[in-house]
Amino acid sequence: MAVKAQVLYDFTAEPGNNELTVQEGEILTLTNQSIGSGWVEARNSRGNVGLVPEDYIEVKTILIISFVFAINGNEAWTATTWSNNNPANNLNHAEQEPAGNNGSVYSFDEEWDDDSDDGKSTGGYGGSQAEEGGTMQRGGAHSTMKLSLNKFPGFSKTPNPEVYLLTKHISKGDDRLPIYMGEVGPVWLYPQIQLDCVVADPKKGSKMYGLKSYIEYQITPNTTNRPVNHRYKHFDWLYERLVEKFACALPIPCLPDKQVTGRFEEEFIKMRMERLQGWMSRMCRHPVISNSDVFQLFLNYRDEKEWKLGKRKAEKDEIVGVKIFSNIDPELPELDPAQVEQKYEMYSQFTRSMDNSVKELLAVGHLHWKRCTGPLQKEYRQIGKAFQNLSSVFNTSAYPREYTLKEALTATGKTYEEIAEIVAGQPKKDLHFLMETNHEYKGLLGCFPDTIAVHKAAIDKVKEADHLVVMNKISQQDKLIMEKNLSTMSYALQAEMNHFHSNRIYDYNRLVQFYLEEQVKFYETIAEKLKKALGQYTTM
Amino acid sequence: MAVKAQVLYDFTAEPGNNELTVQEGEILTLTNQSIGSGWVEARNSRGNVGLVPEDYIEVKTILIISFVFAINGNEAWTATTWSNNNPANNLNHAEQEPAGNNGSVYSFDEEWDDDSDDGKSTGGYGGSQAEEGGTMQRGGAHSTMKLSLNKFPGFSKTPNPEVYLLTKHISKGDDRLPIYMGEVGPVWLYPQIQLDCVVADPKKGSKMYGLKSYIEYQITPNTTNRPVNHRYKHFDWLYERLVEKFACALPIPCLPDKQVTGRFEEEFIKMRMERLQGWMSRMCRHPVISNSDVFQLFLNYRDEKEWKLGKRKAEKDEIVGVKIFSNIDPELPELDPAQVEQKYEMYSQFTRSMDNSVKELLAVGHLHWKRCTGPLQKEYRQIGKAFQNLSSVFNTSAYPREYTLKEALTATGKTYEEIAEIVAGQPKKDLHFLMETNHEYKGLLGCFPDTIAVHKAAIDKVKEADHLVVMNKISQQDKLIMEKNLSTMSYALQAEMNHFHSNRIYDYNRLVQFYLEEQVKFYETIAEKLKKALGQYTTM
Repeated sequence: MAVKAQVLYDFTAEPGNNELTVQEGEILTLTNQSIGSGWVEARNSRGNVGLVPEDYIEVKTILIISFVFAINGNEAWTATTWSNNNPANNLNHAEQEPAGNNGSVYSFDEEWDDDSDDGKSTGGYGGSQAEEGGTMQRGGAHSTMKLSLNKFPGFSKTPNPEVYLLTKHISKGDDRLPIYMGEVGPVWLYPQIQLDCVVADPKKGSKMYGLKSYIEYQITPNTTNRPVNHRYKHFDWLYERLVEKFACALPIPCLPDKQVTGRFEEEFIKMRMERLQGWMSRMCRHPVISNSDVFQLFLNYRDEKEWKLGKRKAEKDEIVGVKIFSNIDPELPELDPAQVEQKYEMYSQFTRSMDNSVKELLAVGHLHWKRCTGPLQKEYRQIGKAFQNLSSVFNTSAYPREYTLKEALTATGKTYEEIAEIVAGQPKKDLHFLMETNHEYKGLLGCFPDTIAVHKAAIDKVKEADHLVVMNKISQQDKLIMEKNLSTMSYALQAEMNHFHSNRIYDYNRLVQFYLEEQVKFYETIAEKLKKALGQYTTM
Repeated sequence: MAVKAQVLYDFTAEPGNNELTVQEGEILTLTNQSIGSGWVEARNSRGNVGLVPEDYIEVKTILIISFVFAINGNEAWTATTWSNNNPANNLNHAEQEPAGNNGSVYSFDEEWDDDSDDGKSTGGYGGSQAEEGGTMQRGGAHSTMKLSLNKFPGFSKTPNPEVYLLTKHISKGDDRLPIYMGEVGPVWLYPQIQLDCVVADPKKGSKMYGLKSYIEYQITPNTTNRPVNHRYKHFDWLYERLVEKFACALPIPCLPDKQVTGRFEEEFIKMRMERLQGWMSRMCRHPVISNSDVFQLFLNYRDEKEWKLGKRKAEKDEIVGVKIFSNIDPELPELDPAQVEQKYEMYSQFTRSMDNSVKELLAVGHLHWKRCTGPLQKEYRQIGKAFQNLSSVFNTSAYPREYTLKEALTATGKTYEEIAEIVAGQPKKDLHFLMETNHEYKGLLGCFPDTIAVHKAAIDKVKEADHLVVMNKISQQDKLIMEKNLSTMSYALQAEMNHFHSNRIYDYNRLVQFYLEEQVKFYETIAEKLKKALGQYTTM
């Protein structure tokens, strides 16, 4: 299948870099998505092929799937098949389950052997795309949750949301997810001590007598201070469980990309570790996720047996999909559906606008990074070389009063050469963190539409309730229960949005502050260096 | 005539600017040299037409003329027609004199009416090129003196250099140009107080009942503190007199460009004035030029009558061309021709190397200027806009703890927008002076080959002297006189080189110092602005 992408921002190719100049709005065909380092190869309508930054494009296949999901929900996900309530869908989905995901405790090690995580056998994008049945890169240019991609059997087991809305729920003690009225509105219950963990110490492991090798990361939670080991595929397993269980209520950000060319293995491992750390920290910060059995298992299992048993249990968890709302216990006055709808519109609008804004920052950051490490470095080197060449020429004058100027010019030239390296190294110091965090937010924001869609579908159903009462499909009592349940769902989304806002303010405050601090250091360092060079000249 | 140019440095076109990508060594046909602002329009061998920075190309017609001059000196200039000593040449050249240059006192105002200097009727490069019989832009991409261009009648009146070499000279009191042994070697006699002048206050004048308008500049020398007025064409007249009189001994740098499109009149007048100031200051600094009658006339004439009489006298000056050496009085031991030759080689080498180095600085400066005012400004604006857009989005969250971050992000965005303007305005503050001075030096260095060639030709003649003695063309006594005169010429060049070196060290010391000072201010200003923006964030 030819993957299409739409260009989000104008991009001008640097000559000699195999790049492709593209215009905003242009449609490209992706010819190679496994380039890595933020680049993809694409062909334009005139048949020209070249590299384009992945941040500048939006993959169209995903857009189409989302579209299908929104317009004709039963295509992708039974949770929205309200009026076309056909139980056969569930069966269909069940049949599509990959066999391995029902695997016993003993088949664990072989489960996803195709999905090698040693950075060697992952040939590239195209391959893994085929394996995963059309999923795109994670956390990359599109970043929707897997919700819409009809892969996860968990969702085929979830009850129809109509059933959730029509059922009177009594929250159970242990699994209860309370929501309180905080200063900013409805909020989740936050733990006294915030969970956190350190992802560190990547080690190469192997199995099958050394035929397969992989990287294992050490994760140490602040609660036990006892490290556990996990491979990338275990993170992936955790991610899939979290999506199954929580994605109707909480946007679960994608894991960092699985696909890369293995050429820069060390650098890649470091980058993946950093991104897994970012993902884990975000999960730890979430009061609902961090407190869940599956997440606790991932961080705290004591031995292989405990892990495998816990894993099996998690895979059989019944409280997944919209069922999660039955655990939610707002203990707050019921909300008016009209108000709820208004809030959803605002959330939709906000996350969409922020998504655009984050993409804009990424695009301009990407451009700036490229300029610093490319033309600017080259130019400062040239300036440095020009001063040094002038100094060399002056040195041949045989004029007796040459020495001071010659030395000063050499120092000036060397200073500009140093500046070239400082300029080229700067993005790693300041832009890197800004880009990484925005990249993470892009992933997170990409999950909101799916989550909000569940809520919007519920509103539509409640709106239809009067009609359904007349049609004798539901009773007046059912309608009131639906409204109560919608209110509960709404509190969940509000709590989640407030969690998002609070984290966002913390993150952006920290990231721009850090960026500016590094920028100040950068300009001050250069000014200091130039002052030193200036000191070599004779004053006049 | 199609003007050809060779590309000196690779240049990559910015898309959308009508620019042409060119490679070092490529030959272009210039299609429009009157673009201005340092650009010319050119066509490459594939027929593509676009703009190219003039500093990146070297005009080929001039190269060809220089070549003719070097190989077959009698083509262009009788001063080198040693073995082909045909007095008819002088007549030929005399016949080629423009009639106006013999003009009476009363015809003065009409002399060069074609050569309007009001920036309006100078249509462009092609036109004035035709008028001036093939001369190219002055002080521009090539910058040779007019020596080689066979225009100036003065040279047709000069005696053959052979005659100078063969004549025993007794220096006369008033016109005597003494050379002393200074700390750095042979030096001109420098005045106690250095002459300087201020070029200021350009005023529009008109004549022929307002049909012709021109700009008059006010020049005030530090000696009299009494201003005189001159039009550009008067500077041009002075330049021509100085070339006639001194160019065999002293490189006379070209005047700033005559040709421009008149579109940015005010800016152009300001730029021309600045460059005329630079040229005048350089002339004032020269002990031989500043002390000459013609230069003193230009600065000190009291009324129209004195000016016109002095002008007539200067035009009839007999001591021009190689005759100038007869005024030079070294009062120093005679030099060995072999030593002299070695020195000339060194001077040749040095001025050529410095010329290349200066061109390299200009090219990289040009590139940097373009980057600062183009892509970098744009990029910082985009960064600023991205932060401000993010702030606007955050402002719509309806989350109660938004205010501080929103305000801080807006401030950050505005700061980067300010930085964009600082970056774009910086070249005018620092690069401008560096570029102007290097441009001036490029012009000056372009004159050395012609001056040095006169000296080299003299050496060749002295080398041939033994043969000429045998042939009975000259006597043994003649040969000794030739060697004595060669020594005098050599002292003149040494004094001139030492003058050049001393000025060069002063100029480059000053210019790089100034550049670095402004660069330090630039980086410090940005660091300060960023610190201020940083202060808006809440500390964590």
